[in-house]
Amino acid sequence: MDPLQFNIPFNKPHLTGKELVYIRDAVESGQLSGNGKYTKMCQRFFEEEFGFLKCLLTSSCTDALEMAAILLNIKEGDEIIVPAYTFVSTANAFVLRGAKIVFADCRKDNPNMDEDLLEDLITPRTKAIVPVHYSGVACNMERIMELAEDHGIYVIEDAAQAVNSYFTDTKGNKHALGSIGHMATFSFHETKNIISGEGGMLVINDPELVPRAEIIWEKGTNRSAFFRNEVKKYEWVDIGSSFLPSEVTAAFLYAQLESMDKIHQKRRKIWDTYFERLSEWAKEQQIQLPSIPAYATNNAHLFYLVARDLEQRDLIIDHLKKQGILAIFHYLSLHRSPFYAAKHGTRELPESDRLSNSLLRLPLFYGLSEEELDHIIENLKSVPFNE
Amino acid sequence: MDPLQFNIPFNKPHLTGKELVYIRDAVESGQLSGNGKYTKMCQRFFEEEFGFLKCLLTSSCTDALEMAAILLNIKEGDEIIVPAYTFVSTANAFVLRGAKIVFADCRKDNPNMDEDLLEDLITPRTKAIVPVHYSGVACNMERIMELAEDHGIYVIEDAAQAVNSYFTDTKGNKHALGSIGHMATFSFHETKNIISGEGGMLVINDPELVPRAEIIWEKGTNRSAFFRNEVKKYEWVDIGSSFLPSEVTAAFLYAQLESMDKIHQKRRKIWDTYFERLSEWAKEQQIQLPSIPAYATNNAHLFYLVARDLEQRDLIIDHLKKQGILAIFHYLSLHRSPFYAAKHGTRELPESDRLSNSLLRLPLFYGLSEEELDHIIENLKSVPFNE
Repeated sequence: MDPLQFNIPFNKPHLTGKELVYIRDAVESGQLSGNGKYTKMCQRFFEEEFGFLKCLLTSSCTDALEMAAILLNIKEGDEIIVPAYTFVSTANAFVLRGAKIVFADCRKDNPNMDEDLLEDLITPRTKAIVPVHYSGVACNMERIMELAEDHGIYVIEDAAQAVNSYFTDTKGNKHALGSIGHMATFSFHETKNIISGEGGMLVINDPELVPRAEIIWEKGTNRSAFFRNEVKKYEWVDIGSSFLPSEVTAAFLYAQLESMDKIHQKRRKIWDTYFERLSEWAKEQQIQLPSIPAYATNNAHLFYLVARDLEQRDLIIDHLKKQGILAIFHYLSLHRSPFYAAKHGTRELPESDRLSNSLLRLPLFYGLSEEELDHIIENLKSVPFNE
Repeated sequence: MDPLQFNIPFNKPHLTGKELVYIRDAVESGQLSGNGKYTKMCQRFFEEEFGFLKCLLTSSCTDALEMAAILLNIKEGDEIIVPAYTFVSTANAFVLRGAKIVFADCRKDNPNMDEDLLEDLITPRTKAIVPVHYSGVACNMERIMELAEDHGIYVIEDAAQAVNSYFTDTKGNKHALGSIGHMATFSFHETKNIISGEGGMLVINDPELVPRAEIIWEKGTNRSAFFRNEVKKYEWVDIGSSFLPSEVTAAFLYAQLESMDKIHQKRRKIWDTYFERLSEWAKEQQIQLPSIPAYATNNAHLFYLVARDLEQRDLIIDHLKKQGILAIFHYLSLHRSPFYAAKHGTRELPESDRLSNSLLRLPLFYGLSEEELDHIIENLKSVPFNE
């Protein structure tokens, strides 16, 4: 087959079937602004399926993180422990409230924060730890929750990539990611397993945080209580923002949720094919494939490779590009960003640096055909490494 | 006709025809996250139609106001002049950055801020004035811009309700609302003339503010410049948030924009019918109807009445409710809100108080039938006032 015929993007959104039907239904039901029928259906789905205490849809995972920061009254002088190898929003949401970010380095076997390094980063000013479940694979939540409890600090799971994934504790109990921390945030951005274009959700598992969460969500007003007839008029009672997405977005999301298992199976099949067919080649080339700890499940969100170095990674990316395949790198470690490098100082984070330079992600989306998958795998194996 | 057959909501969203077609097209084009084809088409539409310098779609008008506050580097100690009779977000967006809100009272003839009272509210700490074009009718922008220039402060038009409306200056030049201030914010919430369920837009007319606006919009990264090949990698360079809406939202919005004139004509016809058929009755009952200053146009966003007092207003609302008609009041003056009353202090704002107690809004939406309009008008005229 002529390689010129291939044009494989890194990601491609898809309709599961009911999205436009549900959007039309939302219009006909007479509510398109937020917190309507489909918002409630999505929230209930998550609460029932994953045992989350309280779910509130948001416009983005960024917004969910910002809501969490407001809920915890983050202010100047507070410190938040965040992995350096993550998306800007994990840190930025807390910077917006005046916090100082203390960056944690990654594990050696996967890009999650290294739980063994956290204790040294905790000070009397530490207000929260934000573990990011990279590629939907669980951080060591048991150790992180113990640490947080010992020091009286909050844990917010950044579960942007971690829908439908689990952590098993040392007693053998299985917990959905997002159900473990005091709060958790999810993303439904187009690159995620379950999508609404842009979109997110805040999960609140600490009952004490629930009442104020609804207020912050509704622009600092007691509108939710008003519609439940708990107060006579709805008023400005706190700070907040317009965090809730429209019913257009929620209707789209609900259609995707109905196909969650089907999407999971398809992605998992692609992921497993990559893993099986690339294992031997990767070993030969000293390329690291994803490693799933025994306590974690795999929601097949990302399939990534960690090359030996920047040079090897760029060689792979360039070679695939010539064959019509878009493989892309991921984060630039935030401790080296123009915005935060000086504030971070000189503390080294070697694993985050290594991943900034050597991790790359392969195309993985619902509509990826077997033929395309073959093409990617065969071309990866034919990258002309100079050994 | 049996009044029980009527069930007229205050607002009802509608599809103009192409919304679902464009959403499907966005999916097929391969981008559902923000800043794609439909986002750019919407932004270009506004820039070309209304002479706005630079438009950036946002998740909500609230988000646009928050972006404006970040762009102006609002911080603790800054003062912002905001009408008291407005939605919480007009004030809250600046409170989130630490500002003190200085509330302005309304004009006597319409709910806009009284430009003659503003000079007394300006101090050396004043950073911006935020005129809200209530019901889409222009504030006296010429006077407000002069004042701002004299004192070296910014003007942000809260044009949430003011799409497709104009201000004519004393030289006879007509300016679209949103094109006059240093920045302006719009809403596409389901109750507005042009809708996307939730949604908004920031307009930047001051060229000095444009480069940083794109960064703040894209979560504090230089992603926009990266996609224009102006920088080699995209990095964290500033604070910001995820302000951009999805292409699902933008595609929906674009379909609405294509029907802007048709929507305007239909709303205007309803508005004019209310005005003509209620004028005499209103005079008899000492009820105030909307008054449009000579310098303003009417985009038919709201049709409101100002009753003599709370008692008269409640009588009207109750009577209409019994006839299957939902007429509703509007803002509770923010200077009396639980969140801000103590911070505001004792300065009186009698017009804002009056409107909090006596303004009510009648149903006005694209799908309102002539029969329904008749029913509303006839029932208003039969409210049993005790005189």
